[in-house]
Formats: sequence, structure tokens, C-alpha cells
Amino acid sequence: MDYAATTPIDSEARKAMEPYFSQEFGNTMSLHSFGQSAKSVLEGCRKKIAKILNAEQDEIYFTASATESNNTVLKGLPGRHIIISPIEHPCIMETANWLEKNGAKVTRLKTDRYGFVNLSEIEETVTEQALVSVIHASNEIGTLQDIAKIGEISRSKNALFHTDASQSFGKIPIDVKEMKIDLLTASSQKIYGPKGAGLLFVKRGIKLEPLLHGGGQESGLRSSTINLPAIVGFAKAAEIAQERMEADFKKISALRDKLISGVLKIEGAYLTGHPEERLPNIASFYFDFVEGESLLLQLDLDGIAVSTGSACSSDKLEPSHVLLALGLEHEQAHGSLRVSLGRSTTEEEIGYFLDKLEKAVEKFRTLSPIK
Amino acid sequence: MDYAATTPIDSEARKAMEPYFSQEFGNTMSLHSFGQSAKSVLEGCRKKIAKILNAEQDEIYFTASATESNNTVLKGLPGRHIIISPIEHPCIMETANWLEKNGAKVTRLKTDRYGFVNLSEIEETVTEQALVSVIHASNEIGTLQDIAKIGEISRSKNALFHTDASQSFGKIPIDVKEMKIDLLTASSQKIYGPKGAGLLFVKRGIKLEPLLHGGGQESGLRSSTINLPAIVGFAKAAEIAQERMEADFKKISALRDKLISGVLKIEGAYLTGHPEERLPNIASFYFDFVEGESLLLQLDLDGIAVSTGSACSSDKLEPSHVLLALGLEHEQAHGSLRVSLGRSTTEEEIGYFLDKLEKAVEKFRTLSPIK
Repeated sequence: MDYAATTPIDSEARKAMEPYFSQEFGNTMSLHSFGQSAKSVLEGCRKKIAKILNAEQDEIYFTASATESNNTVLKGLPGRHIIISPIEHPCIMETANWLEKNGAKVTRLKTDRYGFVNLSEIEETVTEQALVSVIHASNEIGTLQDIAKIGEISRSKNALFHTDASQSFGKIPIDVKEMKIDLLTASSQKIYGPKGAGLLFVKRGIKLEPLLHGGGQESGLRSSTINLPAIVGFAKAAEIAQERMEADFKKISALRDKLISGVLKIEGAYLTGHPEERLPNIASFYFDFVEGESLLLQLDLDGIAVSTGSACSSDKLEPSHVLLALGLEHEQAHGSLRVSLGRSTTEEEIGYFLDKLEKAVEKFRTLSPIK
Repeated sequence: MDYAATTPIDSEARKAMEPYFSQEFGNTMSLHSFGQSAKSVLEGCRKKIAKILNAEQDEIYFTASATESNNTVLKGLPGRHIIISPIEHPCIMETANWLEKNGAKVTRLKTDRYGFVNLSEIEETVTEQALVSVIHASNEIGTLQDIAKIGEISRSKNALFHTDASQSFGKIPIDVKEMKIDLLTASSQKIYGPKGAGLLFVKRGIKLEPLLHGGGQESGLRSSTINLPAIVGFAKAAEIAQERMEADFKKISALRDKLISGVLKIEGAYLTGHPEERLPNIASFYFDFVEGESLLLQLDLDGIAVSTGSACSSDKLEPSHVLLALGLEHEQAHGSLRVSLGRSTTEEEIGYFLDKLEKAVEKFRTLSPIK
């Protein structure tokens, strides 16, 4: 129940990667036919991803991860006024912090209790010099921003709009043209593709400084030998996600709703994020008088994997910056438990989880000095 | 015959990766046991690599590629006087160019006709503020620098010394302590490991600015979800390379010598790089009155993969900056052909290659207007 942290590779995507490990292992930069055939496979992957996003083929760049894509965007547009939400993933937040320390102008928007950024605040803040970066779907609470609206505001001001779609890509439809997105980040390992592949959509005409200089791969934006097996697996996983999107959405969001109503039957349990405008697979809670940490470890003993906050910051034992941004108290933010479902999650698993969770909450409350 | 561009994955390394694709797919940052067990596998890989380099476990950082490692070093030490050789890989050269454009002080050393940097020039140039970065084994001509000597000079001046060992790691012994190396880059895909993994050795006490900010993986130096399958494959490939090193060296360098003496029988054919102080697997040549490009394409029709210059710059059709640095004329540098052997190269293949090469050279010379 921690599919938002990472996913196993889909067996078809795995199979698609296979030939590129040891048979067709050519370097896409080589002029001989082994290299050229690798290059044509790479371009095929680019085409597939472009189609899914309604982008042009030459607007898709492959990176090694969403973290790399996000770093590339924020660091690749020096001189821009960076406007971010307070519920970004650490790879946006920390990059913005670092840029600010190095002289960049950074504005952090406010959100309401559901995690929605304030559209009129964007309207007031954005100028032509701005790079607006707002996460599409929160990796912690699952809230879905009104990306099309933010895109519209940004475009109307001639600003650039980037969205980190790591959690939403492959789960809900994204159309970069319709949503007026200028730059978009997505990840392979969140959609049953292999680790080691990310994508960056860059609208034609936008010039980024590369983060990785070198041999000039990816039209010079991202040098490094092309990781073809990972990219092939990513493109295949993206295609599969696209095909299954409706069915997966229906099945997984039904399980999520069952999960939410089950958890909320526990006294002193609260859902975070917006009740409807949310990803199909993420639900996040907090509990009076119980730390998420303790619940996580108890559930782990029961064979259940969940997360407190996001996987990326969960070894830091700090309260989630996302939950604090929603206005939660420190204790509440510490109590947070993120449950994220996947394709293979069953109703039985939800039942088992609810049973174990209830017992764990009860156990810790009995032990707690505060009642 | 283009194993310096990239290699197929060793079947044992492939097998080692297998469990981490879809079964043990945990995120190393997750606190639950799936995550913690992934973390312990990661640390095991780090230990293996450390042992090979005679480094400490906490001095090894995993990246996605040698390009990323090299970019991390050069960009991660702002304020340093960067001193590089003129025969670096583009990912060092272009990064240094970019940093210079942004205000960094960059010095490019000279080399002799074999590609050796001038040690007394280093002695004269290096100060405490310097970061010396010299490629261990040239990816184009195969010349092996006297790394231990450069390390000694740099250490004696309290400068930092980095070497890009992408081509040498796994092929010849490297001891970071003995060779007084402060930072070292290596790559998985050059040693029969998977694409998507690189390593960066950073001597204890050296503080680098991260290139990728985010969740704080790799002790905060390199954020991004850990690509465990690739790292496991890399560590396994490194172990195998270490075990086979002596035998591979003997077998492959014997084939290389056969290749070199065969090619040099062709009239107007010349070897580049040092005749002895070279990698076991790389030999690079140029030919009077014949372009490397034409040879490459003709040999490709014969089913032989070779390279002109390095794979990374071979689609640019510019004469190799490495060969120009050795003092070759433009026409000679354009004539260059790099042949790189691998574990599965056979004597028959060398014979076939020599036969086809001779015919190709003859054919193009017959066509050439200049004689």
C-alpha cells in the first residue's frame, strides 16, 4: 500500500526492455547501424510519449528521473522569478531553496486546507519573468490542482508554467496543449516502468540551459549515454497506463473510497487533501494522539507497507512540510499516514489493512499518556 | 569492435538485477521493511565498489552515468581553478567550457603527441585552489596517464585531483589511496554492466554542492529515487571485471597487438596514442587520403561496428578534439578510426576486420582525387 513511493515493473514493460540489455545494446550516438537502430528505437519511444501528452515528438526529452527533470527546469532558466506552491516535492522545494540562496527570486504561494493554491494569488504575482511550478497531484495528500487554470493564467501573462506530474502522469489524462503547460515532468518508476527514466516536456521555443553538459544527447539538453532499456520500458509502461487508465481509475478509486470510509470510522481519524479532487490511488490521514511513524512500524510488522509523508522525506522524521502548509498542527502532521493503492491491490487487502490499522491505533492510544 | 562506446550486459550481472525489477522493488527511502531491505542491498553494492577502489564505503556515491558524475564534480566545487587536459571526454570539456563562460577560471594543459599531459606544467599551474581533472585512459586513443604522479603533485599542493576513469575502471587496477585520487568517476555501461549507473568516489572531507537537489538520497549529494536494479548490476559487473581483470587484460591486449600490427601493414596507416602505455582494448588509427567516416560506413556494410573519435561526438562530423590536441592535422584527425575490443572478440574477428579494412582503404584511395 505504498505504490506512490514506487511501483514494480509491469511484466510487459519488462519484456519490452529485454532485447536492449545484451543484444541490441548499441549507443544511440554511434554512426554504425547498431547505433542507428538504437537511435530509431529511442525516437519511437519519444513519439509514443508525445502522443500520450498531445505534444510534438521534439518536445519530449528523456532524463534519468523526475528529480533530474525538475532540477533541469528550475536551474535551466536562470534569471526567472520562481513561483512555487508550498506542497511541492522536495526536488522542487530544495532546488528552489538552493537557487534562492544563490540569488534567485523565489515566491512560495499559499494553499487552502485542501492543498489548492490560490489562483488569484498567482494572478497577482505572475509576470513575464516568472516560472510558475505547481505540482499536478500532491504525492502526499493526492489533491489535484486545477492545472489548466494555472496554465491559462500563466500563458496570459507570458510567463512559463511547469508542472511536476510525477504522480498524475499515467493515472489521469494530461493534454499539454489544452492545459497550456510549457514544461512538464514525469517519472517511469511511478507508473510500473523501470527506475532510471524520467521525462521532460519542453514546449517548442523554450530554451533551457542543460544540467548535464557533454556529448550532446537529447538535442544538447541532456548529455549522457542514452539508457535505452529504461526508456523503452518507460514508453511501454506509459502506453499500458494510457490503455488501462479508465479501468484502473474506476477500480482503484473505488478501493480508495472503501479505504477512506473504513479509516474514517476510527474515532479521531481525519482525511487530508480534497475529498473529491484527488488522485485515484492516494489517501492520507492523521489520527489524534498517535504518530504516523509508530503506525507505520506496527503495520510493517503486519506485512503492510505504508508511508508517513512522502517516501523521499520519510527517513528524516520531520513533520511533513505539505501538511504544515495545509494549516495542520505539528502533532497532526506527525500523525500522518499515506496509503497509496496500486493495480494489484485487492478488496481483501483493504479489509486486512483496516483491521490492522484499527488495532494499531487502539494499541498506541492505550499506551499514550495524552488522551 | 566498438566496446568503448558501450557494452552488452554480462549475463551474471543481468541475473543479479532480476529480483529488483518486480519483486524487491522497494524505495530505499521508505521506512518499512521493503524499503529498508532495498537500502541494505544498496549499501552492499557500495561496499563492493569501495573494496575494488580501496576506498571507504561512505566515499562511494551512485549516479546515473559518468556524465553525471563528471558534471557533479566540476559544478560542485564552485570557486575552484579548474585544470583539465585537452583530451578529456566532452562531458568534462563542455562542462568546463560552460563554467568558464559563467566566470570560472579554466586552464587547459598541453599534451605531447602520445596524449600525455606535461607533469611539470601541472606542477607550475596547480595551487591550493585548483581542481585538477585528467582522464585516466583516453576514450579515443587509449593512452593511460600517469595518474599516481598527477595525484602526488596535486596532493603536495593541497589541490583536489579528479580523474575520469570511465574507460579504465574494471580494466586496470585503481587504488584511490595509493594513487592519491580525491575524486573519481566510473561508469557501469563500459564494463558489461547496465546503462543508467555511474559512480563517484569522493574522498572523506571533501564537500560538493549537489547537482540534483531533492529528497536527500546519497547523503544529500545526489537526490533521486535509487535505481537499485542498475546499481546491483553495476556492482556485480564491477566484481566480475575485477575477477577477470588479469585474464581479460592478457587475452584482449594480445588481440589488440595483433590488430595493431595488422593495420600498420597497410601503407599510410598510423597508430595514435602511446604504443605501450595504453588500455588493453582500444586502438586508434588514421590513414593517408581516407576519411574515418567513409571507412566506418563501409565497414558497417560488412557488419563491423567501429567508431571515429568517440561515440559521443561521432554524430557531429567535426575532427576529434583529442587528435587535434596531439598535434595531428585536420585531415589526419578526420581520418581517425577507433577500434575497441571486448570480451567476446575473437582472433577470427580480427582477421575478418583486417581483411575488410584493407579492402575499404584501397577502395577509397582508388576513388580519392588526392594521391
